[in-house]
Amino acid sequence: MTTPQIIEADLTWTGDGFAAGVQVEVDAGGHIGRVGVLGQTPTERLAGKALLPGFVNAHSHAFQRGLRGHGETFPAGAGSFWTWREAMYGLVDSMDASHLATLTRNAFAEMRSCGITTVGEFHYLHHDASEGGFAFDEVILAAAEAVGIRIALLQACYRTGDIDAPLAGPQRRFGVADLDAYWTQIDRLTPRLEPTRQSLGVVAHSIRAVGLEEIVTLHEEAMRRGMVFHMHVEEQPREIEACVHRYHVPPMTLLNEHLVISPRFTAVHCTHTAADDMERFLAAGGNVCLCPLTEANLGDGLAAVAAIRRQGGRICVGSDSNLRLSMLEELRWLEYGQRLRGMERGVVRDEQGRVTRALLEMATRHGARALGVRAGAIEPEKLADFCLVDLEHPSLAGATAETLLDTLVFGAGNETIVATCVGGVWAWHR
Amino acid sequence: MTTPQIIEADLTWTGDGFAAGVQVEVDAGGHIGRVGVLGQTPTERLAGKALLPGFVNAHSHAFQRGLRGHGETFPAGAGSFWTWREAMYGLVDSMDASHLATLTRNAFAEMRSCGITTVGEFHYLHHDASEGGFAFDEVILAAAEAVGIRIALLQACYRTGDIDAPLAGPQRRFGVADLDAYWTQIDRLTPRLEPTRQSLGVVAHSIRAVGLEEIVTLHEEAMRRGMVFHMHVEEQPREIEACVHRYHVPPMTLLNEHLVISPRFTAVHCTHTAADDMERFLAAGGNVCLCPLTEANLGDGLAAVAAIRRQGGRICVGSDSNLRLSMLEELRWLEYGQRLRGMERGVVRDEQGRVTRALLEMATRHGARALGVRAGAIEPEKLADFCLVDLEHPSLAGATAETLLDTLVFGAGNETIVATCVGGVWAWHR
Repeated sequence: MTTPQIIEADLTWTGDGFAAGVQVEVDAGGHIGRVGVLGQTPTERLAGKALLPGFVNAHSHAFQRGLRGHGETFPAGAGSFWTWREAMYGLVDSMDASHLATLTRNAFAEMRSCGITTVGEFHYLHHDASEGGFAFDEVILAAAEAVGIRIALLQACYRTGDIDAPLAGPQRRFGVADLDAYWTQIDRLTPRLEPTRQSLGVVAHSIRAVGLEEIVTLHEEAMRRGMVFHMHVEEQPREIEACVHRYHVPPMTLLNEHLVISPRFTAVHCTHTAADDMERFLAAGGNVCLCPLTEANLGDGLAAVAAIRRQGGRICVGSDSNLRLSMLEELRWLEYGQRLRGMERGVVRDEQGRVTRALLEMATRHGARALGVRAGAIEPEKLADFCLVDLEHPSLAGATAETLLDTLVFGAGNETIVATCVGGVWAWHR
Repeated sequence: MTTPQIIEADLTWTGDGFAAGVQVEVDAGGHIGRVGVLGQTPTERLAGKALLPGFVNAHSHAFQRGLRGHGETFPAGAGSFWTWREAMYGLVDSMDASHLATLTRNAFAEMRSCGITTVGEFHYLHHDASEGGFAFDEVILAAAEAVGIRIALLQACYRTGDIDAPLAGPQRRFGVADLDAYWTQIDRLTPRLEPTRQSLGVVAHSIRAVGLEEIVTLHEEAMRRGMVFHMHVEEQPREIEACVHRYHVPPMTLLNEHLVISPRFTAVHCTHTAADDMERFLAAGGNVCLCPLTEANLGDGLAAVAAIRRQGGRICVGSDSNLRLSMLEELRWLEYGQRLRGMERGVVRDEQGRVTRALLEMATRHGARALGVRAGAIEPEKLADFCLVDLEHPSLAGATAETLLDTLVFGAGNETIVATCVGGVWAWHR
């Protein structure tokens, strides 16, 4: 029997605030044991540091890290989501396994250095060539393993190039022949997962890429298997228009009417979702994933966060295009986007009016819920996933236990994050 | 005669792009000499690094660094600019010279670590007690000197607590008895400046704090002396309403009608400025200073950047409240705020459609123009102020000379900035 680690930082996030003198027991299996004033000699005394739950990045397309620094020149005038998608397809067209492995490893390593310990990799770039084969699925899993990041591989079903349209050009790299082929691949991947750090989730890429009947079937099977289910929903007006044209109602109305929405369903973006559709979706327990940096970069617009919050909605956060990786920046701009929208401060707030506590929940607990991972809090039986902050960093000067979270979320960046721990295994980043 | 420094980084920003093999001569007086392929042996070979002009922070209130981590809880519901101002007044009330010195030194040091080499310190907190004395002016200059940052001390005239209202409570720390007292203090400070790194500018705090006649007189004297002039303009609708009530027109209309606007005038914020007022102001050569992080934090709203750009307006950038210090984050969110506003990409762009080149101009050349400082470019006779970037940082992996600026501005943060140089004197930050 291995002796558990006993971790003690100067300050530890308890879920309600930062407290001094807290010890965290981590067992050999990588789970948290007891948490509190245990009166033990720490095996890891993290002086001058604060311990937080590791951040959960609920929505990533790792390969899009390859677009960083590209597609930001607009000689013909302003661009849009759709001109960006052309640049993304260009990258896809040139992709081979080696390039994908490099991009994905780099993106995952960079995620850890900004405090992310779990990634939900919404993975649709499956094939090394247009013939199929799913060779890229294992590239992603191997990259996660190399970096030591926890991953929920959100395996995307992608069937059509637009509603009722065949796959064209680079989209063939994404395609799944039929639902049998999809589940066959899920069953092939399952035994290859690293069991303590890797899991699978089910994805219908979007209403553009999977027909309604197949979405229903996919979702039913995912629920039968106890898997989480993710889908891009209403990021762009054009997607809504095409859906209304084909199905007579917007995507979210369709999902509410045809699926049994539950806490295992996560709708990504919901930038343009109508209030009544959102209300029904949230009442059934659905999660919303926002990606502030990417949605701003793409000029998508701003979701109705205040209304989602008022209805008790669980919002989680994703780095999406990985153009810029910083969970702290994502969180403050999630709130700031809303401030700019409504010209009032404190849109994301809990019952006590605390903004950053509500934002931190999004980056931890709510993300873990959306991915079906037992992480996101420093509590007994949760996974021992942590983010470690350097209290001596100049950007945190003057912070106390009471003001540290506000100082971090509104006033600091990646430069304050010195280490992360995934399942009890530490990596130092600075 | 001292031999000049010859600096050579792997890549150097030439104003039009990054180039390899460029050598930059820096004379003993801290100015740039020749720039180009000089065929010399570098005295500073900065391998694995890129050299940029140091950033110019055109608008700062250093003491507000003390509010970081405060004022972000809203128990009574959402807050506003005005609830924030109450928190700021609380900090002012408690301020002594020692606390101010610490906050200011910390803020200036943090600025350098994010690539800023010149700060325009919009300084209105003059007095150690409500009796006057201007003791705090020299605290600011001493802090800048201790940190080695170049400073334009933008000395604010603050006369009224609101239009025609007496100063009240903490505002008495800001007050100037009359314009004679203002200019006496300017004349007292002038010989105390460190001549190579410190200069003075003239400020009317806002239409709330200085009456129109005195603004006109102050501005005329500033122009007579060849000094720059800064003023907060139209950040909040309430300021415009009060001005219309008193003067029958908005602040910017007043300024256009009563002042001879020139390139030495900088209007800070202009969040709610009417299109025709802005057009007239820009046609006269006025500068606009935007503060994206602070304006978002305060829920001010978004200025009409596309229109300002179309009219050839020079926009510079300030860190204002210093709640968060990151020039790269300011720049990308300047563009992203506009993308969210208009749902199109590439709002800030030059004639060739390049977004980041236009943004970098704002953080360098345009800021230098607004502060009247010969910095902001790596060119002969400019001040030798640089920002040095670590090309080996993981967030820049994959960047080439062609994509580096886009990668930096959209994809990176303070963690990539390793050193700054002010007037030929280097400081390393990591």
